[in-house]
Amino acid sequence: MNQVTPWEVKGDIDYDKLIKEFGIKELKELPKEFNDNVLFRRKKIFAHRDMQRILEAIRDKKPFAMMTGLMPTGKFHIGHAILAQQMIFYQKLGAKVYIAVADVEAYHARGQSLEESKKIAIEEYITNYIAMGLDVKKCELYFQSNRSNDSKKSNAFYRLQNLLAGHVTFNEFKAVYGEITPGKMLSGLMQAADMLHAQLPEFEGTMPVIVPVGVDQDPHLRLARDMTKRIKAYKFVQLSSTYHVFVPGLNGGKMSASDPNSYIALTDDAKTIKKKVNKYAFSGGKETVEEHREKGGDPDIDVSYQWLTFFEEDDDKLKEIYDKYKAGDLLSGELKAILIEKLTETIGGYQSKRTEAQKTAEKLFKI
Amino acid sequence: MNQVTPWEVKGDIDYDKLIKEFGIKELKELPKEFNDNVLFRRKKIFAHRDMQRILEAIRDKKPFAMMTGLMPTGKFHIGHAILAQQMIFYQKLGAKVYIAVADVEAYHARGQSLEESKKIAIEEYITNYIAMGLDVKKCELYFQSNRSNDSKKSNAFYRLQNLLAGHVTFNEFKAVYGEITPGKMLSGLMQAADMLHAQLPEFEGTMPVIVPVGVDQDPHLRLARDMTKRIKAYKFVQLSSTYHVFVPGLNGGKMSASDPNSYIALTDDAKTIKKKVNKYAFSGGKETVEEHREKGGDPDIDVSYQWLTFFEEDDDKLKEIYDKYKAGDLLSGELKAILIEKLTETIGGYQSKRTEAQKTAEKLFKI
Repeated sequence: MNQVTPWEVKGDIDYDKLIKEFGIKELKELPKEFNDNVLFRRKKIFAHRDMQRILEAIRDKKPFAMMTGLMPTGKFHIGHAILAQQMIFYQKLGAKVYIAVADVEAYHARGQSLEESKKIAIEEYITNYIAMGLDVKKCELYFQSNRSNDSKKSNAFYRLQNLLAGHVTFNEFKAVYGEITPGKMLSGLMQAADMLHAQLPEFEGTMPVIVPVGVDQDPHLRLARDMTKRIKAYKFVQLSSTYHVFVPGLNGGKMSASDPNSYIALTDDAKTIKKKVNKYAFSGGKETVEEHREKGGDPDIDVSYQWLTFFEEDDDKLKEIYDKYKAGDLLSGELKAILIEKLTETIGGYQSKRTEAQKTAEKLFKI
Repeated sequence: MNQVTPWEVKGDIDYDKLIKEFGIKELKELPKEFNDNVLFRRKKIFAHRDMQRILEAIRDKKPFAMMTGLMPTGKFHIGHAILAQQMIFYQKLGAKVYIAVADVEAYHARGQSLEESKKIAIEEYITNYIAMGLDVKKCELYFQSNRSNDSKKSNAFYRLQNLLAGHVTFNEFKAVYGEITPGKMLSGLMQAADMLHAQLPEFEGTMPVIVPVGVDQDPHLRLARDMTKRIKAYKFVQLSSTYHVFVPGLNGGKMSASDPNSYIALTDDAKTIKKKVNKYAFSGGKETVEEHREKGGDPDIDVSYQWLTFFEEDDDKLKEIYDKYKAGDLLSGELKAILIEKLTETIGGYQSKRTEAQKTAEKLFKI
């Protein structure tokens, strides 16, 4: 699948294909608690499958779960924060939150040891989840390589992974993963077990499960949905999913852990944030101040503005920035200064909680 | 691999290949306790890999383990008894005995539910192991789908299965399993984890492990040995293995659970044993009594005689039967009568213990 950039997504051919061929649907008519959230209100989370089940569960105060995972590599950056915000959002709505540390996948995909994965998962990901407001004590937060301290749960989880293999073909795996290896296949089956196992009797029992993913992840959902339909040994409620756009890379490309100039990490200090944004943020401004004043900037391609659409919650303020930038009243440097202030405030807020958060994370996994 | 019948095995091309290309070795110069056992003394167990490690452990009274599995399908018959005898043999020699009920494999290979596998495993296999003399309370006897009541053990076992996938290719799987499916691949990885996990720190720790198998199973051992060498996250002592011939089918073909005339089950009563042997046992005798008296029978192709080589422990008695049959002094009907008596005595002995044995088996798995 092609890279789906946030400002292209509506017109993107693959998006059309997803809607027409695979039946994902635009998210609309959401209840107030969803629209209170910037990600839903601004259609950063823009499409879904079977979301109705989740909305009904929330409306009827019935149990439901949210499942997501993290690949424990690199720095935790603001791209990852989007998913963390959704964890916190659903937890506050009453979801049982399941979070898989994909250390088995990291072993196969990156050759990363389980020890290294554990270290990164705790120091980078889990610590920041907690700092951002996730109550990890109320989560089922686990490592793929070490599912539970309860043997019934562990056995049930890995049993599901093993049995799922009977309900999928190699060609279906190839369609999703490209060149397929035994390691990738195990990771894929593990991922399906991650998504489905909350519904096992050893865990929550049958209930709707929402899996929020980036729009490029839909093939994985389709694979898991196919297995869900076919496996007769279990009765699962079919998975629900939502699809979110990506936070664009700071320098205008894709945000990537291997390119530090493409992201702001949650550990970046105020000085680094200021330096990175000023130096690397892809600008929609004109070449000269004069030209910019005359013709105005283009907020739709300006990364500083795009980032503000994720982090500036005040719609009026955001609209004012958009209009002023487009009119040429706001210069690129000024727009960057607004972003720097916002990021410093937001990330600084998280950072003030990191020391305590890391203690909680380490205690949780007995380090 | 071609079918390797017990009386062909020495001259069989595949056996030569195993020795020349793959390096399995003839078993010789065994210590007394091995030669006291009919299976070793008569070269029913005829070849090995890395057996020296096991012999040294026994000699030095160092810990070692024996690992084997059972596919819970069909009736437990005297073909299966050969493996059970080896479990008991090694247990008495001080081995920690690991036995896997291959219910995940049965799910993938036969579409058999875990519940059905559990029932058959307990009623047929485990009950008979106990009746034959295995102390299951001192075994690590487990279901692949439900490794342990200790979460540390379960996690460690399935973790190993998952990580092993990173150290094998699809082509290597294909070479062993032929047409490969995701289910077969998971079963294969599970089997390798079965063989290796006794050495994990959560189980016995590093130690020699003997895996006794039928000679057709060597490709599975080679696959597991390759993974053992490659996986760096663990340090294993390379697996040891022995290779045994098959008990020939009663009617002269392969002994098969799908052909009741090819085997005697451990639940067959005296009347059934008599009827089956008289009616179906492939004979090496001549067409008429006169011709037999004159030319003699051929014990080397006579299934009754062949079976006696597994069950009649007295070498002198066996030689006498061989000589008399070959000389024509013993008729086919008389030879069959000797076998019937031996089987009735042996199996009857097991059957007298079955009721108690089944209670033990059911209690062990809380049924």
